[in-house]
Formats: sequence, structure tokens, C-alpha cells
Amino acid sequence: MDGDPQSSSRGKIWRNRSIKDDSFAIRCDIVVINELRVEEEEAPGQVDTPEFVSVPPSDLHQYLGNLLHTEKGADVVFEVGAETFAAHRCVLAIRSPVFSAELFGTMKEGDTAAGVVHIDDMEAQVFKALLHFVYTDSLPKADKEEKQAEEDVMSQHLLVAADRYNLVRLKLICEEKLCRYIDVGTVATILTLAEQHHCHGLKKACFSFLDSLANLKAAMNTEGFDHLSKSCPSVMMELLAVPRA
Amino acid sequence: MDGDPQSSSRGKIWRNRSIKDDSFAIRCDIVVINELRVEEEEAPGQVDTPEFVSVPPSDLHQYLGNLLHTEKGADVVFEVGAETFAAHRCVLAIRSPVFSAELFGTMKEGDTAAGVVHIDDMEAQVFKALLHFVYTDSLPKADKEEKQAEEDVMSQHLLVAADRYNLVRLKLICEEKLCRYIDVGTVATILTLAEQHHCHGLKKACFSFLDSLANLKAAMNTEGFDHLSKSCPSVMMELLAVPRA
Repeated sequence: MDGDPQSSSRGKIWRNRSIKDDSFAIRCDIVVINELRVEEEEAPGQVDTPEFVSVPPSDLHQYLGNLLHTEKGADVVFEVGAETFAAHRCVLAIRSPVFSAELFGTMKEGDTAAGVVHIDDMEAQVFKALLHFVYTDSLPKADKEEKQAEEDVMSQHLLVAADRYNLVRLKLICEEKLCRYIDVGTVATILTLAEQHHCHGLKKACFSFLDSLANLKAAMNTEGFDHLSKSCPSVMMELLAVPRA
Repeated sequence: MDGDPQSSSRGKIWRNRSIKDDSFAIRCDIVVINELRVEEEEAPGQVDTPEFVSVPPSDLHQYLGNLLHTEKGADVVFEVGAETFAAHRCVLAIRSPVFSAELFGTMKEGDTAAGVVHIDDMEAQVFKALLHFVYTDSLPKADKEEKQAEEDVMSQHLLVAADRYNLVRLKLICEEKLCRYIDVGTVATILTLAEQHHCHGLKKACFSFLDSLANLKAAMNTEGFDHLSKSCPSVMMELLAVPRA
């Protein structure tokens, strides 16, 4: 009989164990290759706007980046090591309460009032990256080789700078980057930094890594761990309190 | 016979016309209700960053909005009608070449050098919205009733202002909004505006609407059309040249 499921190729489906009570489930895995395209239904007869006018996405950060780059109307100069950077008091002050106090508050005195600010305890490249973030809300793009070699060190310095100027989002960006650099050789240094600058997420990531007894033992043989135990003894107590298999 | 498709409920599927050559297609309509979640595969053993640190999206426009709102370090005042607005020369100049020339260029003179700029031929509310755009790259949110009643008129005024200060993206935003207000009563006024301020997309949208002979006839009976024919005779020639069914 032609329609007999047992004798035709169609019959294969009946012998499959997926069929139960005359029904079967179909699983669809959807992979979105390109950007999501959203189509809105429009009222009939209405002019189809996107066909005629296309508004590009906001590029405010590029304008602010240009402001930093061109130094147009700059009214303050920072001296950092051997380098100087021109900037705009109003932009700095609205982005950081620390800059605000330094440039507009009662802390303003001497050279600051004259438009020159000396920055101590910071490398010029770190201050340069911090300024870039203040104006554009992003970090300057490093080339690939530089990225491999220096991103972890730069992120540590920038985290300290972000904490100093109370730039919350920059601090989180640095924490997020440093999470990716946690390994046996770096975890103690990164944990010290996290503890000293109150980075809860980064500290948790370090603890998660040290949950493994093998990782902990290996990390304890590094110089960074000596430094951690001396500068943050309370963290050592916390580490000891973690139950391990 | 139990397995006979003709006699069992399973047999319904065979009688369905969708089956061809032992196969059938299944159409899945996927509706994405929430935001798209993208999961990246990570190397085994690596710390799962998002679990510990979450970086919020950029909020640069909010900081700049605060700068406008708080007037911190403002160094220029605009007098528009009976109202005054404090602002920052550097922000205005980097956003608009016209502001740049007015505030930093050779056009700077008299009151401008002293920090006061008079704006003629513009309503205070329009200048206020323009300033909001300059600082935040977006338009101020109108409440719903206001939106219904005034958005089209405001968009026309803002388009003129955007053209005057060469704010390209603001001009496109206004064009895009006005496309949605094109109807028999408004098309002539909007087309006049589009022609006078070189808005190619908006002009095309008006022409598309007037492609219909019924729309054209109805629009020709409006006051706006009289004005269009007098102020932009070349557009009338273009309209006549469009082949219509």
C-alpha cells in the first residue's frame, strides 16, 4: 500500500522516538548574522519616512573629541611630567567632581587660577588617556601590538586615575578589562589594586579565580602575593575563610 | 491497520497539500520581545567578566545636558526676545561652524566680545531647543499634548534654525519629523521650506505625496500653495513635469 508509513520513506518519521501522542517538537536555532532589522508597521497612505530622510546616529563624542584635539577655546593647561595638555574647565568640571573642586571650588589657588595645573604621581600617557575618556566617554584605540603588551598595565594605572578623579564609568571599564588579565602571575597585584580602590566586581573576579586551590597555591609563589599579604592583611583573612574542596 | 495514515489521526498530515515529495516546510515567525542577548564563547578557564563587572552604556549626553542646565563655567549669554540663555563658547563653537565664527572668528565684535550675543528673527523656545540639541544631540522631550499640537510647527522653526547654524544632524531630524506631517493641508508649506533650505529628502517626500493627482488637486486649493507658487516658481515647473496617470 502506497500510503503505508511502515513501507514508505515517510514511515521513517513514525519510527523516530521524538513522536509522542501524534505530535513532535521542532527546535529552531536562530543565528543573527547581521544587525537586527526592525520594521515598523505604518498607517496606510502615510509617507514612508525612512525612504526619504535618514538620520545618522549621534556623534556627540566625536565633536567633543575634536574639541580636545583642536584645543579650541581651551582655558586650562595641565603639566604632567614633561608634557602639557590644554583642556576646557567646563567640560572637566561637569564630568568629574574632583576637577570641579580643583578648577571652580575653594581649592582653586595659585597656578590653578592662572590656568596652569600641575599633576603629580601620574604618567603623561595615563593623563592623556584619562582626558580622552573625559571628552569622549571611551578609551583611545591602541594598535594591536601595543594592546597585547601594555593594556593590562595601562588599565591598572587608569583605574587608579579614575578613582582619583571619581570617574565611575572609567573605573568600571578598567575593572572589566583587568578581569580578562587575571591569571596566576597577575591575580595578587590586581587583587591589591581592587582592595585599595574599592573595586567590588574586580575583587570578586580575583576571589573566583583563587577559589581553585591549584590557582591559589601557584599565585602564592609570586612577588605580588607578598605585597598583597603586607598591604592588605584583611584580604588574606578573607581568602583563608573561603571553603575549598 | 493501526499505522495506516488514511485511517488514523496521523493521516491528516498526508492529506494536507503542504506535503510535496515527502517533505514539508515549517515557517517560524520569531518575535524578539526583549533586547537581543549576545553570548560570546569564551576560552575555557577564563574568568567570566560580565558576571563580576558590568559597564553601563555611555551617558556623555547627560553630562553635557547638565552643563547646559547648571551653566557651570558659562562664558556667553544669548538674548533671544525677552529671554536670556547662558552657554559655553567652546561647546557651541565645536558643534557649529557658524557659532565658531561668531564667537571666535573675525565676526566677533562689540557685545559678542563682552559675552552677550543678541539673536534676532528667532523665538526663544526655538533657540532653547537648539541649545538643547547642541549639548545633547537630541531634542527636548515634549509632553504628549504639546507634541500633538506643536511638534510640526516647532520642527519647521527648528529646521530653519538648524540651517542657519549649519547643524546638519538637527536639520535631518527636523526633516524626518516633518515627513510625518505631510498632508493636503501642510504639503505646500513644507515643500516651500524644503526648497528654501535645500532639504533634498523632505522635498522628495513632498513630491512623492503630490505624485497622486487627487493629493495635488486638493493641495492646490490651500493658501500655502499660493505662497509656494510665488516664492518657488521653479518648484512649480518641476511639479508640472512629473508624469501622472
